[in-house]
Amino acid sequence: MSLIIIGTVAFDAIETPFGKTDKIVGGAATYASLAASYFYNKVKIVAVVGDDFHKADIDTFNEHGIDTEGLQIKEGEKSFFWSGKYHNDMNSRDTLVTELNVLADFDPIIPENYQDCEYLMLGNLTPIVQRTVIERLKNRPKLIVLDTMNFWMDIMMDDLLETLKLVDVLTINDEEARQLSGEYSLVKAAKKILTMGPKYLIIKKGEHGALLFHEDKIFSAPALPLAEVFDPTGAGDTFAGGFIGYLAKVGTVNFNNMKNAIIYGSALASFCVEKFGTEKILNLTDEEVANRIQEFVKLSAFTIEA
Amino acid sequence: MSLIIIGTVAFDAIETPFGKTDKIVGGAATYASLAASYFYNKVKIVAVVGDDFHKADIDTFNEHGIDTEGLQIKEGEKSFFWSGKYHNDMNSRDTLVTELNVLADFDPIIPENYQDCEYLMLGNLTPIVQRTVIERLKNRPKLIVLDTMNFWMDIMMDDLLETLKLVDVLTINDEEARQLSGEYSLVKAAKKILTMGPKYLIIKKGEHGALLFHEDKIFSAPALPLAEVFDPTGAGDTFAGGFIGYLAKVGTVNFNNMKNAIIYGSALASFCVEKFGTEKILNLTDEEVANRIQEFVKLSAFTIEA
Repeated sequence: MSLIIIGTVAFDAIETPFGKTDKIVGGAATYASLAASYFYNKVKIVAVVGDDFHKADIDTFNEHGIDTEGLQIKEGEKSFFWSGKYHNDMNSRDTLVTELNVLADFDPIIPENYQDCEYLMLGNLTPIVQRTVIERLKNRPKLIVLDTMNFWMDIMMDDLLETLKLVDVLTINDEEARQLSGEYSLVKAAKKILTMGPKYLIIKKGEHGALLFHEDKIFSAPALPLAEVFDPTGAGDTFAGGFIGYLAKVGTVNFNNMKNAIIYGSALASFCVEKFGTEKILNLTDEEVANRIQEFVKLSAFTIEA
Repeated sequence: MSLIIIGTVAFDAIETPFGKTDKIVGGAATYASLAASYFYNKVKIVAVVGDDFHKADIDTFNEHGIDTEGLQIKEGEKSFFWSGKYHNDMNSRDTLVTELNVLADFDPIIPENYQDCEYLMLGNLTPIVQRTVIERLKNRPKLIVLDTMNFWMDIMMDDLLETLKLVDVLTINDEEARQLSGEYSLVKAAKKILTMGPKYLIIKKGEHGALLFHEDKIFSAPALPLAEVFDPTGAGDTFAGGFIGYLAKVGTVNFNNMKNAIIYGSALASFCVEKFGTEKILNLTDEEVANRIQEFVKLSAFTIEA
């Protein structure tokens, strides 16, 4: 039994109003697997890097109990590199550099000992690679979560729609939900998207929290209001990793557990943005996580007599 | 003991992607007093209209148990008129016409039988008129709630700051909170605004719900995701009216009751936008309101073991 996370492992160079970084380790699979590792101890990644990726960086995964057998290292090639600059409001950013490098022809390898996969997180990648991973698993996982973005809707909508048919949970933001469905109202958008394959839809709204749609039910999760957002990079992937890591830990997929999973994912994401890159989510204590969860409980609790 | 609501009583002509209206009765005091009347039976309004305002419209207030002794009718003058057109996203609108008419020299009259005021809602008006009402009450009310908007920050910031010193609760939207405080982060904005007079700050975020700040505590209230938003006009005033009406009913002002009050206000606002103008909030049944409240409870409830 394990949780497989596929996505980018990459270098990022980030500039925010608070400062800038040199190349630091980033990527969807990095954030998601680190987040998941706080709740579940059989996290395995599928990704590709170049030989510019350091052994120390791989050690970091392993120290968090993350299996890296599915992390391919391409000799003589370079890792995926992204550079971006956030605007003052931290809600929008410009991409300065995107070098696909090893990602250009990424052919995911699923090691034999990954075939016990029960939970599968398909981080943001081309929908064809995402589908390939599903096909290469001998047994269909109990839960497949897919994250994607407007970029794939712009250039590969048909492939995305094919892949969507195979998944249980889709996580996208509000603009992407509108683009995918052609509906402005998120309620109408969700209704359409829930006919495309996913049985659960999570709409991420950043500082406004998240909405979970399933059948006729809706759950509205708050975001923790923060005095400082230092660097939003990876917050969505951290959310997704915390979400599926919590579900893998409790082992039962239902609406109630999914609501809690969203709170756990949101809590980890709220840590992520407090420092540059993965820095803050590398060394959280159980107590810090538990306290943050309690902040979410307090934030949204009210008592109205029935 | 009573709840006084001061604000505009006006005519609106509204155009949305779903249709348009002729002149219909609107205004902050109209929406707020109708909303409050669902929870409290001693609602009294202070406002001014022209002789174009019909007796039938005044009857509507009275049928909801709203005292209109403080509603001045200016012979030979016309009521305040606003006309606006909403864009397709329903989040932005263009003002087509603003005719101040009787509002230009509004001098609020507080009838003697209004002097038992315990709860005071100062709807959006010039901060000088808002302050005048406070000064004309012989006893300071137990709770003063003030609603305002960016317009007054642009042209009368000093007067607004003077009035703010006198109130307990301020309701504004997120952009207005940023403008008033000069801080982008809503947490930092709230911290500053809570030194300006109000002990409670409510930041209205429309489809994203509302935040309540008090001392070091924060409450995040969801908005009900709706399939159709037919006409957003008056939603904020309906929210404020439901909010203070509920507090007047329970009779004790504290953080917990205020959280519930925000849910009650949000529930009434969610009805308001379902039809044009005040149409939907004219004839709600107790059962409809109770059911809507339960939808809010279900929407945001989750159970995480401590």
